[in-house]
Amino acid sequence: MSSGRQEFIIRPIGIIHSPHRTPAGTPIQPAYAEEADGEVIVDEDLEPALADLAAFERIWLVYWLDRAGPFKPLVIPYRDTREHGLFATRSPCRPNPIGISVVRLLGRERNVLRVRSVDILDGTPLLDIKPYVPEFDAHPSSKAGWLDDSRADRRVADGRFHETEKP
Amino acid sequence: MSSGRQEFIIRPIGIIHSPHRTPAGTPIQPAYAEEADGEVIVDEDLEPALADLAAFERIWLVYWLDRAGPFKPLVIPYRDTREHGLFATRSPCRPNPIGISVVRLLGRERNVLRVRSVDILDGTPLLDIKPYVPEFDAHPSSKAGWLDDSRADRRVADGRFHETEKP
Repeated sequence: MSSGRQEFIIRPIGIIHSPHRTPAGTPIQPAYAEEADGEVIVDEDLEPALADLAAFERIWLVYWLDRAGPFKPLVIPYRDTREHGLFATRSPCRPNPIGISVVRLLGRERNVLRVRSVDILDGTPLLDIKPYVPEFDAHPSSKAGWLDDSRADRRVADGRFHETEKP
Repeated sequence: MSSGRQEFIIRPIGIIHSPHRTPAGTPIQPAYAEEADGEVIVDEDLEPALADLAAFERIWLVYWLDRAGPFKPLVIPYRDTREHGLFATRSPCRPNPIGISVVRLLGRERNVLRVRSVDILDGTPLLDIKPYVPEFDAHPSSKAGWLDDSRADRRVADGRFHETEKP
């Protein structure tokens, strides 16, 4: 078993639509995007796999950060004025640009999910959907390093981590 | 912008070591793996990007479920006796077999992380590390559909979702 030598192929299973057309102004996390409604269009042939999802209040969206800039080992995140290791931040400039966001699930109609609190750029490729399960995912008092000390209160992005907008 | 037509290449950034050599008997979630310590070996050239991570109590590991069976739209999950849509479960048989787990971070030495509560098979390819941030990730009272009603209390896997073990 070797580390890091293989490659894996990812094929998107749908697309995420949101009001956020450009990185600048997009909320940096779902917690700051409470008013932002979006739609998740799942490929039609996967509709059967969405059964029972609507009973969950929140879901994880796993997606490809397709407009993120190249990997940088150190970044100044939105929530601080100092540099931090990339893996200690949620910046999109990751070696594998995979994003995860918890969003509220408002409803499902066939292969389309209506969601709220979307901090994701319009047109982002969807890779996976998972139910949000507090028993597994919620650790409300977990210590959060530099973020616990941060005094910066920025809630929207300014484009520093993204390539020039897509045409 | 099309959905689902592109492909993306994923290159692992390291490897996850755990006491779990076979799916049967592996805890189905970190919450049931409190005693299971593991090591995350990150590729050496990425060590600078791990700066500041050690101050987080928990981290997300994002990984490739390399021994999962093929995608199934409906599954009987470990925590129930009835069938559910795949996306309403955390079963590994996903179209893109990407797993996410919150683990406790015990410490870091250079490019190696010592972690606890690992529900991941030994030798699993690592794709990303993110800090666990309660402000973004913790929603303790979120409703969890069939899991809130489930009376099944299974905490370890039995191999139903996995290919025959690797040689």
